[in-house]
Amino acid sequence: MEARMTGRDGGADIGPIGEFSPVVILVRPQLAENVGTTARAMANGGLFHLRLVAPRDGWPQERAWYASSGADRILDAAQVFDTVDEAVADLHHVMATCPRPRHIVKTVMTARGAASELRAIADRGLKAGLLFGPERAGLDNEDMARADVLIRYPLNPDFMSLNLAQAVLIMAYEWWMACETTPPRTLMTNETHVATKGELENFLGHLTRDLDECGFLRNEQKRPGMVRNLRHLFQRGEVTEQELRTMHGVVTELSNGRKARQQ
Amino acid sequence: MEARMTGRDGGADIGPIGEFSPVVILVRPQLAENVGTTARAMANGGLFHLRLVAPRDGWPQERAWYASSGADRILDAAQVFDTVDEAVADLHHVMATCPRPRHIVKTVMTARGAASELRAIADRGLKAGLLFGPERAGLDNEDMARADVLIRYPLNPDFMSLNLAQAVLIMAYEWWMACETTPPRTLMTNETHVATKGELENFLGHLTRDLDECGFLRNEQKRPGMVRNLRHLFQRGEVTEQELRTMHGVVTELSNGRKARQQ
Repeated sequence: MEARMTGRDGGADIGPIGEFSPVVILVRPQLAENVGTTARAMANGGLFHLRLVAPRDGWPQERAWYASSGADRILDAAQVFDTVDEAVADLHHVMATCPRPRHIVKTVMTARGAASELRAIADRGLKAGLLFGPERAGLDNEDMARADVLIRYPLNPDFMSLNLAQAVLIMAYEWWMACETTPPRTLMTNETHVATKGELENFLGHLTRDLDECGFLRNEQKRPGMVRNLRHLFQRGEVTEQELRTMHGVVTELSNGRKARQQ
Repeated sequence: MEARMTGRDGGADIGPIGEFSPVVILVRPQLAENVGTTARAMANGGLFHLRLVAPRDGWPQERAWYASSGADRILDAAQVFDTVDEAVADLHHVMATCPRPRHIVKTVMTARGAASELRAIADRGLKAGLLFGPERAGLDNEDMARADVLIRYPLNPDFMSLNLAQAVLIMAYEWWMACETTPPRTLMTNETHVATKGELENFLGHLTRDLDECGFLRNEQKRPGMVRNLRHLFQRGEVTEQELRTMHGVVTELSNGRKARQQ
């Protein structure tokens, strides 16, 4: 069974594996499917090192591979330990996810704050681990005492319930975002480009001439305001050079249609 | 069936439903389970308004309620439409999630950028919708042409595959985070408090006296450096008043034990 899993075709290439990306440690996971969906969520956010502490049904479990949507390499390389102490022995920092920390004196970080700190830890060449508890009960007090800090996701306090893979996904997503440089907003222009003001002016000139010709702007008093309003509309968002060419065609064709009807 | 679903006991209280929180619109969803897990993810992040466009297996479907982990109220109130046009007709802004936009001229935002804009839209009293495509194929070109902007999550480009509920969860999480004020790092102290410098000094004085007494600091030349090093250690992170009291006890008991052995 193991050979089949490790050699399975169709495993997606999850990309280069960062040496110092944090280790995800599932403590006493119950369902093998959840280990698989966890691996998928890890791959989404660029976390690649998986450790299992005392998985309830033993390891390996073929169902994990089936649930991983191709994140095979993470499961193939997963390490199994009997105790949390053994699983964290070679790590320099341990953070434990904990939805409702109670009666405990501990540093608590948001997922975003933790991700930023995890990047800083990795940049220093130190190894960090993230503890996630069993599906039903979460981490116990002894587990949490082994962590430097707790991580608590800000979420709707009336509905905090996340499944294991979703909890891992949010942490993996924040890990990825902590180094992300994509601008929050951009215009995807493909073959064309954002129009210059000159190109826009050229179109507005064309439009105004044709509107003068057809009489739409015949009220001399209102004319400047009407032209300005059209200008405002076309300046509200970025327009591409290709779209202006289309609009030139639209204006020309509407004008020609009108002229043809007038003949 | 419907009465049972809408009246079901045990549905978690998802908290107050924001009037202007964005509408999640699932376009041609295939599996009712995914509608249920989507409702759960929405509740996590404080999104409450669900619309379905032409769900493949019809609606309602009991399986959705079972998969929602108690987000019943969202499913109970879900609205069904035949077309995207009908589903967005009363909205002022539409954003469409699209993992791999191609051959399209469109504004593309990150989930974080979109969430921030969605908050601004809501603050203006305008209604926004978020389009999510069918599980297998995603949104088609006609769907995307109905959106003001596309949303593309920054994720590991070698492994972008998210299931529907995970895609909704990331957007819901960012919606929640866009108004979140929890500090990225805090010390949960429960009944105690972060120690004042005076309380710390008091403990360090006790420790130094006992270390003088037992001879640990007998090297007069090294003594100042050794005391400074202990000071550095106890100043590295916040210490609580309770922990200092425990440490007072630890030092006293170790000293007493030594003295008892010496008698």
